[in-house]
Amino acid sequence: MNVRLSEQSAQPDETAAGRLARLREAMAREGLAAFVVPSSDPHLSEYLPERWQGRQWLSGFTGSVGTLVVTADFAGVWADSRYWVQAEAQLAGSGISLMKMAAGQPMQFVDWLAEHLPSGASVGVDGTVLALAAARTLADALRSRGVSLRTDLDLLDAIWHGRPALPVGAVYEHAMPYAAVTRAAKLDAIRTAMRDKGAQWHFISTLDDLAWLTNLRGADVEFNPVFVGHALIGLDSATLFVADGKVPAELAQALASDGIRIDSYERATAALAALPAGATLLIDPRRITYGLKEAVPASVTLVEAVNPSTFAKSRKTPAEAEHVRATMEQDGAALAEFFAWFEGALGRETITELTVDERLSAARARRPGFVSLSFATIAGFNANGAMPHYRATQASHATIAGDGLLLIDSGGQYTSGTTDITRVVPVGNISSAHKRDFTIVLKGTIALSRARFPRGIRSPMLDAIARAPIWEAGADYGHGTGHGVGYFLNVHEGPQVISHYAQPEPWTAMEEGMITSVEPGLYRPGCWGVRIENLVLARSVGETEFGPFLDFETLTLCPIDTRCIALELLRDDERAWLNAYHQTVRERVLPHVAGEAKAWLETRTQAI
Amino acid sequence: MNVRLSEQSAQPDETAAGRLARLREAMAREGLAAFVVPSSDPHLSEYLPERWQGRQWLSGFTGSVGTLVVTADFAGVWADSRYWVQAEAQLAGSGISLMKMAAGQPMQFVDWLAEHLPSGASVGVDGTVLALAAARTLADALRSRGVSLRTDLDLLDAIWHGRPALPVGAVYEHAMPYAAVTRAAKLDAIRTAMRDKGAQWHFISTLDDLAWLTNLRGADVEFNPVFVGHALIGLDSATLFVADGKVPAELAQALASDGIRIDSYERATAALAALPAGATLLIDPRRITYGLKEAVPASVTLVEAVNPSTFAKSRKTPAEAEHVRATMEQDGAALAEFFAWFEGALGRETITELTVDERLSAARARRPGFVSLSFATIAGFNANGAMPHYRATQASHATIAGDGLLLIDSGGQYTSGTTDITRVVPVGNISSAHKRDFTIVLKGTIALSRARFPRGIRSPMLDAIARAPIWEAGADYGHGTGHGVGYFLNVHEGPQVISHYAQPEPWTAMEEGMITSVEPGLYRPGCWGVRIENLVLARSVGETEFGPFLDFETLTLCPIDTRCIALELLRDDERAWLNAYHQTVRERVLPHVAGEAKAWLETRTQAI
Repeated sequence: MNVRLSEQSAQPDETAAGRLARLREAMAREGLAAFVVPSSDPHLSEYLPERWQGRQWLSGFTGSVGTLVVTADFAGVWADSRYWVQAEAQLAGSGISLMKMAAGQPMQFVDWLAEHLPSGASVGVDGTVLALAAARTLADALRSRGVSLRTDLDLLDAIWHGRPALPVGAVYEHAMPYAAVTRAAKLDAIRTAMRDKGAQWHFISTLDDLAWLTNLRGADVEFNPVFVGHALIGLDSATLFVADGKVPAELAQALASDGIRIDSYERATAALAALPAGATLLIDPRRITYGLKEAVPASVTLVEAVNPSTFAKSRKTPAEAEHVRATMEQDGAALAEFFAWFEGALGRETITELTVDERLSAARARRPGFVSLSFATIAGFNANGAMPHYRATQASHATIAGDGLLLIDSGGQYTSGTTDITRVVPVGNISSAHKRDFTIVLKGTIALSRARFPRGIRSPMLDAIARAPIWEAGADYGHGTGHGVGYFLNVHEGPQVISHYAQPEPWTAMEEGMITSVEPGLYRPGCWGVRIENLVLARSVGETEFGPFLDFETLTLCPIDTRCIALELLRDDERAWLNAYHQTVRERVLPHVAGEAKAWLETRTQAI
Repeated sequence: MNVRLSEQSAQPDETAAGRLARLREAMAREGLAAFVVPSSDPHLSEYLPERWQGRQWLSGFTGSVGTLVVTADFAGVWADSRYWVQAEAQLAGSGISLMKMAAGQPMQFVDWLAEHLPSGASVGVDGTVLALAAARTLADALRSRGVSLRTDLDLLDAIWHGRPALPVGAVYEHAMPYAAVTRAAKLDAIRTAMRDKGAQWHFISTLDDLAWLTNLRGADVEFNPVFVGHALIGLDSATLFVADGKVPAELAQALASDGIRIDSYERATAALAALPAGATLLIDPRRITYGLKEAVPASVTLVEAVNPSTFAKSRKTPAEAEHVRATMEQDGAALAEFFAWFEGALGRETITELTVDERLSAARARRPGFVSLSFATIAGFNANGAMPHYRATQASHATIAGDGLLLIDSGGQYTSGTTDITRVVPVGNISSAHKRDFTIVLKGTIALSRARFPRGIRSPMLDAIARAPIWEAGADYGHGTGHGVGYFLNVHEGPQVISHYAQPEPWTAMEEGMITSVEPGLYRPGCWGVRIENLVLARSVGETEFGPFLDFETLTLCPIDTRCIALELLRDDERAWLNAYHQTVRERVLPHVAGEAKAWLETRTQAI
């Protein structure tokens, strides 16, 4: 996605230096000592519509996370270790420095600003794309140094010639039976949560919350089946703010009959400004921008909490979970077809990392309900697999030949669920060092996959269970162990996260129905990378005298390549887990494949 | 300690109801809707000098943690699950309710106040015993409900006839070689930390910080070898505020030669008030009271951070660690002598939980450098062992006879170190259910004891490693897994803690040199309890390409009773850990015992 952007919208004669110069002119006109360009949009999305890819446009760095800070004589992008190799390459010659950021410290650039700006200086940032919580952190840190913050400036708009417009694609209904819960029932649930918190109004900006609540989907953002909009929910009214023409007439009528009125996207701010004096508004400071909050009259009382829809959509209903199980059988069948082809073709035809993506995507696309990939496939051979967020391009990719490990992290959006899986397979002869790393990571995946834990445990606390076997081997990985996954929605969703890097608050408990990834890894830069990822569903295992307990049902159905295992490192109980998993994979996926894929599945699910 | 208080200072004709009535009269005079009595003193100690045991005096509840809230028509003590059984019994008939508090939620009473008090009401609390951080939380929560907070009231003083005075015992020097680092060197280190934070002054109220910094010890608080005082450190001056007469003349001279001046305890507040305008003062909002902070002139800039001494003393020097190792051999020898006697006497003479305490304390007292116990021995047979903070009394204790499990949690203060150990031993015939619980807990102790982890991991994150095997069995325990332990100082010290209950901030990383307990448990109320506790020292195990790693050296040297183990539940690697541990115990402790203790040690350290 990011690569296509720079191919499409860059003017060939324009350089990062030229853009920065125009930005600095605009800064000088406004008297700003620094301007901050976060990776963000009015909806605080992870994947940004092109219109809001300003940080990429300015800097050339295409990673999905990173903040650009520009002063008169400095420009730097703060990025975490996942992106250092990529950022070094993409920023080379731009005059923009890579600022190495610690994982889980997205506001680290603030310290730099506080240190480098003189008292009395002004920092600018576009408040319409900055989360309220982030704006507060930024303003507090700057104020303590006597630096002021201006949030009323979208400097990009003036200097970005040909800036992409709002996406115009139509929204569509997430149909029954897959939608599973009616939007009327969802609205009821949100209003109950609003009443519980004493709120008469609730504003939603986050696109996955919006899609979940309305049972609508769109294609405004690559990989995420969402559409750009906001919603204002009252106790007896609901307004959906979307660009004109996006909602077909029939759908608008269906929404109206569920009590949801359509209004123009641009009128969301005015609707907030028009809230009656004395009203109480529920907002989520991590899920609404500073700019929108500023539109709320001072006479309105704010109640701040995590969006009720964020909690609600994280807990999949039994019907949704059942659809996901069926989806995993189809996704597993697509993977079996791909791997059967791959093993047969290896050594016979030229296979590159791009071929892997094409073939695997095609296999998924043949499955019922397939809509799109859920993120850009990561297919990394040997050293490329050591970059957790690697993406092969036409200009730079490896051919799969010789010996080593191929890491494939991929997933699909189906109307019946979202998938995300990482597997590592051997190519040619692999060494005992390859096998040792693979087995160590596998031990981590197994340890967390089979964990049982009391209901109420805050999800980041589970991280050490996956890491302990990897730490024991003197290894570690610089990313989280697990992220929430949506239901035909974003492949990354909150509120739960299994990561010791997680910011302290809010630390959501792992609850029944949540779907989360389990994906420990181990990366040897310049050599190879291992990551073994399944999605798991938190489920109740009943109550003991110590209270209610949960465990995980592994949803993902695809063999873990036993040729990469150093058997002597696996304990009996770990081997038993793997054999039981492979038996399940075989039973569930076999009915959906034939021919070579069937043979492959039978071979790769044999007990060890 | 707490029991002795009520025996000593209570007037026999006085009831909790009478005391509460006097408090309510005082509240009415001041126009207070509620008064809060925390378990706290001007030094924010865990164990309180009797003068500040007002919550116990008023309520009769002797637990070490708990907050009393009194209104005109309600009185309640907020206590966590460790104390529920005890509090129910001690509060019965007092008119004071037990308010069951969630673990790790010490400010839960604030929600109750916010809910039950009308807007415009006033809440009183003695600001001279309330932590600054707690005062802020309290004031913020009340202000949002329109309730105001008054902190200038020590209502107890007026109603507590015969309130104990300040302790008068003399302080003494923690002598070389055990003091290991000179106070001059420690002062230097603190001043370096002050300069790093841009502070010219630093105020210390916490007694263990004070004792560590000055290499002085005292006996003002039971079990903790500390003395009551404060210190104000400047870049070229240092003043120790202690009650007149506590510092012998010779010691005062030694302190003076190290640049530490003595002043009266009462003059600490005045010294803060006299700080020059424009000065910068480093304080720790969790380790200074609101009252003291209020004494600081508004013209002084506050720098808030964890006391540098808290970090410094948590990281034991190699010399200190070596003294602790030797101390553990002596402590292990005392335990061996006790257990040898216990096993021989069991069934032959009457042994009660009190006898266990007496005999074990006597065995420790015979060892070189012994000063006192490090906390009140917990000897709990069967159902009593299911109360993690049980304490046998003359009035209520069990005789050790019949069948079951005896849990003994005990420790000593030696001039060369502080110990804390829990063991569980079988009495008569034990069942497979006993053995299952014991083995499950042992698996938790082993898992964390042998863990390796990257330097920098925040200590609470390690908790799940100990709990995973216990969770797997559908069990859990309602207390933390590990607490920091001082060096001839408090048996509970910060800043590290291994507990998922830990408040989010500050979450200290586990660092080389820290001594921490590893003490998972499993409690079946009314039946039995199991806890297996060792102290461990975090040590470097070198650097891999993934960075520096640490692991734990188990310091405690005492057999874990293999008669309680269900062997079939133990994996080979766990059994190997236990056998290696027992071999170490035998080698290290054997030279320090003779006769029956020697024979016992040889038997109980046999490999399984």
